Amino acid sequence: MTRALRPRPAASDTLDLAGNDYLGLARHPEVTDAASGAARRWGAGATGSRLVSGSTALHAELEGELAAFCGAEAALVLSSGYAANLAAVTALAPAGTLLVSDTSNHASLIDGCRLARGTTEVVAHADPDAVRKALAARQGPAVGVFDAVFSVDGDAAPLAALAAACREHGAGILVDDAHGLGVLGEGGRGSAHAAGLAGAPDTVVTVTLSKSLGSQGGAVLGPAAVIDHLVNTARTFIFDTGLAPAAAGAALAALRLLRAEPDRAARVRRTARTLYEALTAAGFQAARPDAAVVSVRAPSAQEAADWAARCREQGLAVGCFRPPSVPDGISRLRLTARADLTPADLDRALSVLTRTAPPAAR
Amino acid sequence: MTRALRPRPAASDTLDLAGNDYLGLARHPEVTDAASGAARRWGAGATGSRLVSGSTALHAELEGELAAFCGAEAALVLSSGYAANLAAVTALAPAGTLLVSDTSNHASLIDGCRLARGTTEVVAHADPDAVRKALAARQGPAVGVFDAVFSVDGDAAPLAALAAACREHGAGILVDDAHGLGVLGEGGRGSAHAAGLAGAPDTVVTVTLSKSLGSQGGAVLGPAAVIDHLVNTARTFIFDTGLAPAAAGAALAALRLLRAEPDRAARVRRTARTLYEALTAAGFQAARPDAAVVSVRAPSAQEAADWAARCREQGLAVGCFRPPSVPDGISRLRLTARADLTPADLDRALSVLTRTAPPAAR
Repeated sequence: MTRALRPRPAASDTLDLAGNDYLGLARHPEVTDAASGAARRWGAGATGSRLVSGSTALHAELEGELAAFCGAEAALVLSSGYAANLAAVTALAPAGTLLVSDTSNHASLIDGCRLARGTTEVVAHADPDAVRKALAARQGPAVGVFDAVFSVDGDAAPLAALAAACREHGAGILVDDAHGLGVLGEGGRGSAHAAGLAGAPDTVVTVTLSKSLGSQGGAVLGPAAVIDHLVNTARTFIFDTGLAPAAAGAALAALRLLRAEPDRAARVRRTARTLYEALTAAGFQAARPDAAVVSVRAPSAQEAADWAARCREQGLAVGCFRPPSVPDGISRLRLTARADLTPADLDRALSVLTRTAPPAAR
Repeated sequence: MTRALRPRPAASDTLDLAGNDYLGLARHPEVTDAASGAARRWGAGATGSRLVSGSTALHAELEGELAAFCGAEAALVLSSGYAANLAAVTALAPAGTLLVSDTSNHASLIDGCRLARGTTEVVAHADPDAVRKALAARQGPAVGVFDAVFSVDGDAAPLAALAAACREHGAGILVDDAHGLGVLGEGGRGSAHAAGLAGAPDTVVTVTLSKSLGSQGGAVLGPAAVIDHLVNTARTFIFDTGLAPAAAGAALAALRLLRAEPDRAARVRRTARTLYEALTAAGFQAARPDAAVVSVRAPSAQEAADWAARCREQGLAVGCFRPPSVPDGISRLRLTARADLTPADLDRALSVLTRTAPPAAR
């Protein structure tokens, strides 16, 4: 089944439950104003590597506020979450290091493990004992690598237990919190903060600026010494053009909104729970959400694609995850419970989903 | 020697010969207006993967115009040139494919080769016979991978001869034209266009939107079937958030300026030649530029760093490339001859470089 791009118009009546704009900030006027203003003030591009001409005071301001918000000592902003994960994994795993990587980790973590000079052992999903077993058998330094919230089903990893398993064996901890920042933890400070890992000397966290913060880019958060090490060694940092000022400015404005309005994080979690309950009551097989995403099982890859297409025709955009984008081979619709969805939006979504569902979906 | 970030202010009197804004478009009002307008119209972020919610009509417009300008059948825009190279190399080299890769290739091409399931043979720099030899020995499909313009010294690869070597052995051709787009070829159509490779069914070209186009992002240009294949297989495309609308809008505006004012490309080449001649006349060991960059040898890594620091103190920003960022271990200052530099700017640059040079540099 081949995938094709479907460019969307600037404005439409479609209800968007497909994107990852969890807090509804991508079109918030303060955020788009900040993007616009940063482009005018700093230029459309960063003009070079962050090590050459591409670091602006705006990048530094964003890094400072992001680190402070998440409780980390320092932060480093890259052009994407993918680049941030490649940077973090490779920098933490020189030759001789063992990476213990959850089998459901995101593609960018997997590619990071493949690029790293260290070796990788893939362990069962969300399984602290599997981590313990992998670590007990090794010699030399090791790092556990975990997605905090899994993109497809929206389930949260047992982060505190995974971290405890790493610590029992003296291993470092790398957490990808792409889907947790802005959604989980106190005021949206993220999964690592919620698990008591923020600021820990053995923990590095990666986040994206393109989901809850409505912009583009990624960041690595951790001890200042680790950030300095990344500046000096991470190839996707050194050999990439710095994040565009508009994206840095937008992410900073979104972060400030989140800090000023901490209920946004709780709101997206409440909305997700409401959507899950309504879907379950309607007979669908939905996954109980830990964060912003609710996934609904489809009987097959083809039926998932057809279902999503029918939703789109009826004005509802939903994600459709099929193999090879799902770790377990099960196709689903993926629904994002944005913080700015109204009860009427949720009613409309449920109505379209019910009307268009394949018979075997319930 | 550790590297540290030096954030720059929004405005300063520093003369910038460090960035890759070759055509001086990053701060062109039409480009920053386009960035600003796109953020307001489309939102600060793309909100998701290009396959889910992240493809806008703006991305499609940029892809269409970029492909047409460069003479390719189709184009695909990614969030960075790094991501574009990882996508292109991995998609073109499934298991069983041989990648023949120039030893001076950019880090992103090297990482692409490492991530690809195919095998890689590294060959001598800019050496068609070395390519022939590597290809003659292999069985199965093969692709030659070449930077068209090398970032450090600004020298152009003998692209037509390298392509001929690939074609003699039925191998595909992948050209990274990050530093050629906007600078080389008719009206800045790039190195592949200049070498007669544009639109060829066996050639794929990658470009960046962050250098001559003054924005952020990268693109893959090639046959429509290859672009479709990337949409369906390239992990840095599928599992990354789409390029921010502001960056897509800015790149599109810059491309239109370049098309409307084709002399910009010739101007940057003339400026580079003038700078090179002045440096040589002053006794420096400069590399004869094929494109926009002029490099000047420094006696050592420490003296290069000190020289660059003295330039900066005197209001001239220059790049400083030292091991491990240089393929041959030789440290240099790297000077970018932007199309919008005036004769007075060049005089000032030469004066600062001469005043601050270490004795052994001449």
